[in-house]
Amino acid sequence: MVRIAIVGGGAIGLLFANYLTKANHHVTIIVRRKEQEMEIKKHGISLTGQEEQMDVEVRQSNDFIEQEFDLIVVTVKQTAIKEVVLNINRGILRANAFLFVQNGMGHLTSIRQFKNKSIYIGVVEHGAKRISDNMVHHTGIGKVNVGLLKGNEHELQVLVKQLTSEKFPVNYAQNAEKIVKEKLVINAVINPLTALYRIKNGQLLHNEHFIAVMKKLFDEAMVVLNLENRADMWEEITRICRSTASNDSSMQVDLTVGRETEIEAISGYIIREAKEKNISVPFTTFVYESIKGMSAITERG
Amino acid sequence: MVRIAIVGGGAIGLLFANYLTKANHHVTIIVRRKEQEMEIKKHGISLTGQEEQMDVEVRQSNDFIEQEFDLIVVTVKQTAIKEVVLNINRGILRANAFLFVQNGMGHLTSIRQFKNKSIYIGVVEHGAKRISDNMVHHTGIGKVNVGLLKGNEHELQVLVKQLTSEKFPVNYAQNAEKIVKEKLVINAVINPLTALYRIKNGQLLHNEHFIAVMKKLFDEAMVVLNLENRADMWEEITRICRSTASNDSSMQVDLTVGRETEIEAISGYIIREAKEKNISVPFTTFVYESIKGMSAITERG
Repeated sequence: MVRIAIVGGGAIGLLFANYLTKANHHVTIIVRRKEQEMEIKKHGISLTGQEEQMDVEVRQSNDFIEQEFDLIVVTVKQTAIKEVVLNINRGILRANAFLFVQNGMGHLTSIRQFKNKSIYIGVVEHGAKRISDNMVHHTGIGKVNVGLLKGNEHELQVLVKQLTSEKFPVNYAQNAEKIVKEKLVINAVINPLTALYRIKNGQLLHNEHFIAVMKKLFDEAMVVLNLENRADMWEEITRICRSTASNDSSMQVDLTVGRETEIEAISGYIIREAKEKNISVPFTTFVYESIKGMSAITERG
Repeated sequence: MVRIAIVGGGAIGLLFANYLTKANHHVTIIVRRKEQEMEIKKHGISLTGQEEQMDVEVRQSNDFIEQEFDLIVVTVKQTAIKEVVLNINRGILRANAFLFVQNGMGHLTSIRQFKNKSIYIGVVEHGAKRISDNMVHHTGIGKVNVGLLKGNEHELQVLVKQLTSEKFPVNYAQNAEKIVKEKLVINAVINPLTALYRIKNGQLLHNEHFIAVMKKLFDEAMVVLNLENRADMWEEITRICRSTASNDSSMQVDLTVGRETEIEAISGYIIREAKEKNISVPFTTFVYESIKGMSAITERG
């Protein structure tokens, strides 16, 4: 049994909390809103289509948390990570090990600097959609790939074995940076385009014109991130479009409901890296400016 | 009195027919559909908000037309111009002079080859929206600039004076290619972006991100078309966005209702020119492929 705190009550946070509780770990979920805290306290966390509700300890993110965890899983979006990193640096969130599962790579520099901690980064391949404050729809079963950013490799391998279960497989990945880079490429191609065109993931493969734009974004990301497995990666991207064909990407949803998107962490990161390396990325720049502009029109408040 | 035939029963065709009839010219409008022919025959052509209906002769485009006109104004979109050019070449449409008012420049090569004809090209600055088969909403009063592609300069100047009226000013423009090039730049910036973002013309100036993309498209078009009056042209584009702020661009409307857009004549032309001149136009390529792709999803039939 691992004592786990999960920071973030979004779809991924609820998914982790549900499955890790099922696997008999002691799970505390840390959420931002009082209403969500109350809801989870009363009804536990459940998956749609399943009657079973998982009893999970729940805390508000500005509560004083006295205990130290074996593992803290940070599931908030990269747009909200600054505050979590601050709380870790201040010792308000204490654990032996941290697992970060954000899209993008912009946070890696700051989390690498944590003193005396084991830092893991993960790539979540699940599809998940939050239905309510305590219920999540598991739209696509995948796996969680976890790699070592800092710390002891063997310890991580042991942890991964403890966390994994049949319906929620957790894999050890040898090259942590490679897995987040690859996820970044996938996100840089699928997310901004589905948001811009207001289409579902599968529709990207609908015609040669969309595919032409995808390939341009793909090429730019691969060059900037210095990845070489072009054929495999392109195959992976089209596979994901097919396997999540009827899903709306998170960026498409965020843009539609007027929430802040992850465009900074995804295309913004590629543009900043490209600038440093003096590489031209016009297609990535196009989607970046377009999503920023459309957000400015649709964002609430 | 000039004997004028107007080819095309769209918004611009109806607008020309209405105002030129008001200015006491003898106008025949040539439309494609029988229903539109009947409608105009019965009720004439009118502007929204005005009771007066202009009696205009109307013919179907596959009728045999025995008479020769002083002037034929071709108002069909560039996507439909092939057939008109064919009918002119076959002598089915006969006139001393032709005025073409298409967006884009792709048709200039073929119309320049007409034998023994005066060929004029025009840029329409009016805003117009077809309400029904015989009614048009004049959404923005502008002017029609006409320049000489082939023929006698003085003859054109005389014609322009005959056509012009207070509410429908027609101007002589010294450099025909320059005015269509400038219109092309304006269309290449405003039309694809408003269609892609599904916004009104005025919203393009809503934030720095949209403006950044506009400027990139603007730069590419200016370089490819070899235009130098950068400051004036940019000022003109922003002026048009403001003066037509609440209008949907024709491309945005075409895309929404599932009609073929003019993307080939606008961005497609720039891309083909750029290729010949070995100039890179990634932003124009992005909007071109995007509009083509979105059309393939929304097009009817």
